[in-house]
Amino acid sequence: MITSKDNSQLKTLRKLQQRKHRDKLGLAVAEGEDLVDAATAAGLEPEIKLVAGEDVEPDLLDGVSTLGSGTRVIAAFPQRWADPAGDTCVYLHGVHDPGNVGTIIRSAHALADGPVILGPDCADPWSHKAVRASMGSVFARPPARAAFADLDGTTIALERDAGQALAEVAIDGPVVLCLGGEREGLPPAILDTADRLAHIPVRDDGPDSLNVAMAATVALYERARMARDG
Amino acid sequence: MITSKDNSQLKTLRKLQQRKHRDKLGLAVAEGEDLVDAATAAGLEPEIKLVAGEDVEPDLLDGVSTLGSGTRVIAAFPQRWADPAGDTCVYLHGVHDPGNVGTIIRSAHALADGPVILGPDCADPWSHKAVRASMGSVFARPPARAAFADLDGTTIALERDAGQALAEVAIDGPVVLCLGGEREGLPPAILDTADRLAHIPVRDDGPDSLNVAMAATVALYERARMARDG
Repeated sequence: MITSKDNSQLKTLRKLQQRKHRDKLGLAVAEGEDLVDAATAAGLEPEIKLVAGEDVEPDLLDGVSTLGSGTRVIAAFPQRWADPAGDTCVYLHGVHDPGNVGTIIRSAHALADGPVILGPDCADPWSHKAVRASMGSVFARPPARAAFADLDGTTIALERDAGQALAEVAIDGPVVLCLGGEREGLPPAILDTADRLAHIPVRDDGPDSLNVAMAATVALYERARMARDG
Repeated sequence: MITSKDNSQLKTLRKLQQRKHRDKLGLAVAEGEDLVDAATAAGLEPEIKLVAGEDVEPDLLDGVSTLGSGTRVIAAFPQRWADPAGDTCVYLHGVHDPGNVGTIIRSAHALADGPVILGPDCADPWSHKAVRASMGSVFARPPARAAFADLDGTTIALERDAGQALAEVAIDGPVVLCLGGEREGLPPAILDTADRLAHIPVRDDGPDSLNVAMAATVALYERARMARDG
């Protein structure tokens, strides 16, 4: 039973709250039974796993949790990365919010066969918040990394009012749905070189944009629907 | 210039962080210029509006902000409620997360003409977090309150694996898309009495469910697409 906050495993878990340490160690943290179970179900072996009251005093475990009090188990698992390939992938550029990145990973897991591909300036998909928003999908369907220029398949840049409605974009073969951050959108270099431009139709009297996780999910749904219904 | 934290406007703003005070006073708080602008653009008049460095010392304004330091403006606006009517509405039951409630309000604003209708046991749409997640849409398109039994139009209960795929549910006239909380789903009383049951098709090897905000957004998108494409 760990009884000191200076224990090396607790120190490591505390460090893993920072991206630089996650990157260096190649680890990600699952907080709570649901996420630990999801990682284990995905075939991952924990490098650290601490159960409150069994391996560690509950207060000490709470002290390294980002959830606050009452966390029953915390584990650190190896990060995994996928190849940026699939019939339908999502490419993100400048999506800063880890909750959005995690939610998109969950939606891609539900609706597509390909990974979420992270371009420049995106939130770490292995941050605590992204792992939680993914509800563990990040373990079952690991993300990928790539530059836009290296993407395979037909790239569809999604941008408000751009090109055709997505439901009218008929493409055979693999596609990559490309989305930018909510405020900036996609950079001109991508809008100019993407194979197709498309938008999700929204009301004129509505907000300026959809949340990027909503836009990505709708796009994934639409591609799956088209594949099914022809 | 307010220089004391005991100022009555600051006290009111502090109280409004709690639902019971928001309910009692019928007010909601917009933090930051974007949300204050959104409320003002929706025709609302602030009952309190404090600008850092003009009306109040910046530190004192930060002290009543849920955003932490650097908040430039905070305002309290009257809550507005809509009638639970429209060609396409969303009805929520037991959606506890204010971020999800706010996000669904934003999506409904983008994709439908009707309001988000709150049934029992939902997060307060006027909480700071919900207002922020709505990106101000809650001011432009106020939510409604109703019991399921009082809903007008054809009710479609959305539940994993239930009924037909939503894209196959042809209905003329107004519809209400009904969604439950992520863990519990809709209660049997609603599943048994809804006019139709429908689901959003997801992969067998995917997660157990979509995030409820994703599911609501996809459902709103699908109804809009069907109305457009026939």
